[in-house]
Amino acid sequence: MSNCIIAQSGGPTSVINASVVGVVKENLEKKLYNNVYAGINGIEGILNKNIINLSEKSLEQLERFRFTPSSGLGSCRYKMKNFNDSADEYIKLFDILKELNIDTFFYVGGNDSMDTVAKLSEYTKLNNIPVKVIGIPKTIDNDLPITDHTPGFGSAAKLISTLTLETYLDSSVYINNGIFILETMGRDTGWLAASSCAAKLGGKPVADFIYLPEIIFSEDQFIKDVAKKFKEQNQVYIVASEGLKNKNGDFISTCNISGAHDNFGHAQLGGVGNYLKTLIINAGITKRVKALELGVIQRCSMHIASKIDLEESYMVGKAALTYAYEGNSGYMVAINRDSNTPYKSSTMLVDANKVANNIKYFPKEWINAEGNNLTNDAMSYIEPLVDNDIPSYEVFNK
Amino acid sequence: MSNCIIAQSGGPTSVINASVVGVVKENLEKKLYNNVYAGINGIEGILNKNIINLSEKSLEQLERFRFTPSSGLGSCRYKMKNFNDSADEYIKLFDILKELNIDTFFYVGGNDSMDTVAKLSEYTKLNNIPVKVIGIPKTIDNDLPITDHTPGFGSAAKLISTLTLETYLDSSVYINNGIFILETMGRDTGWLAASSCAAKLGGKPVADFIYLPEIIFSEDQFIKDVAKKFKEQNQVYIVASEGLKNKNGDFISTCNISGAHDNFGHAQLGGVGNYLKTLIINAGITKRVKALELGVIQRCSMHIASKIDLEESYMVGKAALTYAYEGNSGYMVAINRDSNTPYKSSTMLVDANKVANNIKYFPKEWINAEGNNLTNDAMSYIEPLVDNDIPSYEVFNK
Repeated sequence: MSNCIIAQSGGPTSVINASVVGVVKENLEKKLYNNVYAGINGIEGILNKNIINLSEKSLEQLERFRFTPSSGLGSCRYKMKNFNDSADEYIKLFDILKELNIDTFFYVGGNDSMDTVAKLSEYTKLNNIPVKVIGIPKTIDNDLPITDHTPGFGSAAKLISTLTLETYLDSSVYINNGIFILETMGRDTGWLAASSCAAKLGGKPVADFIYLPEIIFSEDQFIKDVAKKFKEQNQVYIVASEGLKNKNGDFISTCNISGAHDNFGHAQLGGVGNYLKTLIINAGITKRVKALELGVIQRCSMHIASKIDLEESYMVGKAALTYAYEGNSGYMVAINRDSNTPYKSSTMLVDANKVANNIKYFPKEWINAEGNNLTNDAMSYIEPLVDNDIPSYEVFNK
Repeated sequence: MSNCIIAQSGGPTSVINASVVGVVKENLEKKLYNNVYAGINGIEGILNKNIINLSEKSLEQLERFRFTPSSGLGSCRYKMKNFNDSADEYIKLFDILKELNIDTFFYVGGNDSMDTVAKLSEYTKLNNIPVKVIGIPKTIDNDLPITDHTPGFGSAAKLISTLTLETYLDSSVYINNGIFILETMGRDTGWLAASSCAAKLGGKPVADFIYLPEIIFSEDQFIKDVAKKFKEQNQVYIVASEGLKNKNGDFISTCNISGAHDNFGHAQLGGVGNYLKTLIINAGITKRVKALELGVIQRCSMHIASKIDLEESYMVGKAALTYAYEGNSGYMVAINRDSNTPYKSSTMLVDANKVANNIKYFPKEWINAEGNNLTNDAMSYIEPLVDNDIPSYEVFNK
């Protein structure tokens, strides 16, 4: 019997290690490979021969690892050259895999990693190398095509929707409340910001406005919308993606507002949240504006991981083992949503080439006509992925 | 039988409503008062006659309210004048309470609220007004004297220590990692930043440095410490309180670093985290520096509330009812730590005057000689308050 190897690449998620344990545990059960090796720090680590044997780890270690957030095998941001330009790395990599009698390489990652999967698989086919290459998806951004969603997204979405509700309550306690801006990750797509739509109080979504990169951001319209809502409610709750762009295609967070300064007389602060805060203050709507940038906690908060997400991350790992053993190569394991109520999902294979270098944007038809909030279809999509588990709270000051 | 009234004041916590429900549920059981009224938006709301009857709420509503974060009765930041200067508000307040046949006023709050409790109680005694006034503590800052700790602190501490561990793992995945800075709340005291000491991997605390306002911040020493550690580990994890001050007593977050700018060419960003980031970059230690300001999620994250904190917040509410009925006035309900292993606590009364306008600083003897980390005594104090429940994780890339 031969061996297999697994490695992780790109930005971490809360549940990325569950996929690794899925591969190892499935192999313990089915005994398809002698050993499951792991490259430490992605393909860069394999090239450096920094390799461990996961089959030697105890069940207790594997169980703890399954529920440990962030890439516990280490990660890299290493882009393989095209083998037509230079095959040196390919030769080195497959020499190392041959030494270890490796039959299958599993790569856990996002867009760039699926590009690596596609290239490696193509190289093996062209050169008759008996190694299969299978991609296992992970990214909080949820921007991989074809798969219904990506492992890692549900947990980030659960953190964001939960914190949306909690910070909404925090920003609602005084007679005169102000404006609160929550900035989420999402450089290219709005999936993460959109997940805030699951936060509701008394059945009503708490976010007054949700701004996604899929809609061109207009300062004028933003100021009009916020001023009107603030007049109506004396309070506004805004969610904004870090990737908002203006009509010139520039990220608004890197634009300068002339003469802008905050309460302390500092120059304008970085980030979309602070940019919007400055717009609101400059427009004279109110000075009571708070901006919160969630940052990296969106990709490592195991403490509120989605149970569905944890389970599916494990499932794609298990499925990857069988798909590989059946002889597939150059594919990514994708998730099918078989049913929404009750929620059920399964796996399928998609060509890694169709995933690599393509982006799945948030659907325009799930954004309202004003471009500043979402439809019920968006909620139906998000809610099962956050375990339908954002609490119903009771307050007496509303 | 007469009635009682309760109101909330100051900044929210995750568990502040549990104290209110403690009062209401204890009264349902012991039937000491006809009705438990609530002032909406603190004493300001009572003065505006914005008052509801909590005894009319269903058990389901009360149960949901108990686990709802943030001040669900609304809050205020209203400082009563000294009655020797102007008694108008006092006269108005006690007229309103008399109309409602109110015998006891419970005020849930921090330092300023205990000042109000002391003043109101003194006024009733001087003027023979048959109303008792009892303070119920809450503040995430943990800076009230005499009480072992304050309701609200444990939950903030649990969020901070959990996120310390999670963001440490997130910042450890690459071959070349950088420096991570976590900025906590704590304008005057270091309790919140200190709570990060409970975050451990393989039994070892993950924070390399913890900086508290109780120690004068030295830029030179900071740069030396960080440079040395970065050379040793190629990675540094730093926790800093927003309230760090230099030897002149100025908050460092409001100081300017001459010629400072971030990666995008912006001027120096606000906040302690960004200030320290700029120091590190300017000192040439590394450009790979991330700063994360946790902000208001520290005071509203019910999703990871400490069980001990929830239980004790409920307990001080229950105890307040009995203390008041026994005839006490002008006191705050405090928490005694009766035993650390296993953890046990009870309540006692302390004179509100001794709490008001006093601050409990983090003990100097729990800070190491270098002034940049904490002792085991600090861990022993913190760990039971976060339910001894910060996970043990397993990683394979260290």
